[in-house]
Amino acid sequence: MTKENVRPIGVFDSGVGGLSVLRQLSSDYPGESFIYLGDTARLPYGTKSSNTIIKYAQRNLNYLLETFNIKALVVACNSVSTVINHIDSPVPVFGVIKPGAKTAIESSTEGEQIGLWATQATVLSGAYQTEVSLLQKDRKIQMVSCPTLVSLVEEGLNKHPLLPMAFEYYFEKFENKVDVLILGCTHFPFFKDKLSETFPKLKLIDSSTSLSKELREQLDLNSEPNSSSKTKILLTDEAPNFIDFIQKIFKNNFETEKVDII
Amino acid sequence: MTKENVRPIGVFDSGVGGLSVLRQLSSDYPGESFIYLGDTARLPYGTKSSNTIIKYAQRNLNYLLETFNIKALVVACNSVSTVINHIDSPVPVFGVIKPGAKTAIESSTEGEQIGLWATQATVLSGAYQTEVSLLQKDRKIQMVSCPTLVSLVEEGLNKHPLLPMAFEYYFEKFENKVDVLILGCTHFPFFKDKLSETFPKLKLIDSSTSLSKELREQLDLNSEPNSSSKTKILLTDEAPNFIDFIQKIFKNNFETEKVDII
Repeated sequence: MTKENVRPIGVFDSGVGGLSVLRQLSSDYPGESFIYLGDTARLPYGTKSSNTIIKYAQRNLNYLLETFNIKALVVACNSVSTVINHIDSPVPVFGVIKPGAKTAIESSTEGEQIGLWATQATVLSGAYQTEVSLLQKDRKIQMVSCPTLVSLVEEGLNKHPLLPMAFEYYFEKFENKVDVLILGCTHFPFFKDKLSETFPKLKLIDSSTSLSKELREQLDLNSEPNSSSKTKILLTDEAPNFIDFIQKIFKNNFETEKVDII
Repeated sequence: MTKENVRPIGVFDSGVGGLSVLRQLSSDYPGESFIYLGDTARLPYGTKSSNTIIKYAQRNLNYLLETFNIKALVVACNSVSTVINHIDSPVPVFGVIKPGAKTAIESSTEGEQIGLWATQATVLSGAYQTEVSLLQKDRKIQMVSCPTLVSLVEEGLNKHPLLPMAFEYYFEKFENKVDVLILGCTHFPFFKDKLSETFPKLKLIDSSTSLSKELREQLDLNSEPNSSSKTKILLTDEAPNFIDFIQKIFKNNFETEKVDII
């Protein structure tokens, strides 16, 4: 094992939605160490302006560099991924938007409609459209912001009839019927199964699997289990609902720690 | 007009829900000036721990004192009202919980069940139960936290079928059928009419009207219109959804201003 392998990968989100990305990465690369930072004291980012998001993201990156000497940063949050070009970093920074857009294009035929469900910040940024246009100049995607879906996932209402009703509400907001749907918020992979039940023909794009593939191409990552690899979850505020959420997802395998970032 | 009248009253909320309180106060006391501060850069407070809420609230109060020399502070947010005893202030501080609890007791007969809908922070604090117990020692209230209702109001879905469905969901969470319901979040008065349609017999307690009465008792307030009175809305982050929300409520009568509070 080289020294480079010992340095952890930072995974950063405004809250706990990014755990869908951490879950994917730690399963694909069990030989790597991960430091997850959820900025729960300031979430959600999805309703904030881009200047505020940049300020918070830069502060959190600086903290992860100084405290843990991370070798790369994964931005496991769509709202922050829209501004990664404005973050100063000495280590590589990966967002979820570019790989999500790429997979959406690869998964659709030319006549199919691509839709996006995301937070307001992600929709307003137009970042998915920009990435899609770089790959296929005239390809247009339809975008809908879905704040209540975020709330329903955080409440754990993944099996309640409110959820399919909210799916219908947000799906009807698309001007034309969508064939391929980008889950443009890290909360959304948590309801993938229920969404497939409601719309069986819809192709779902989960950015966390796309991002994991991009990481493999760009970094020399360890896919073999390694006894010294560790995963740590840090939160800027330990509210009980988030602790519950983490325990539900990871079956209580990880301990959380509170950190102060001002 | 004495000099005291010129000093504004500060109204503080984590976001824009407290505008239901501002609307009530500026209608009851048109001769007074109000400075509304919505800490939209850090909202929502309802999912944060009490230590974090106290830290943010103290910072915001200090800002209002130093910049506007406010003569009183109205905490137009239930989550912050649960911790007002921990805030240091040279001017009187009014919360929404005490007047809400008082009105709930006054509006109910002894055999009637009192229920509370609020954010998780307000429910966990037990603050409404504490205030109710001070008035009627053995009176118990039932409490349910409703984060998705907050999200639905912020999305402006006050007329969508999702809202009554969410009402039913949260109402069924009460162990015993409730007769009097405290709207324990400043977002909830915005759907009062729809809630009355769904549950016509339910008595609704709106803290903003109770709070306004308490202010009249404690302060010497000006109920006559006054040409020099002003209302100003400050936000720590000007995300477009909040601007939309404010314009919907106040029919674009107030301009907003962004302020930085670190």
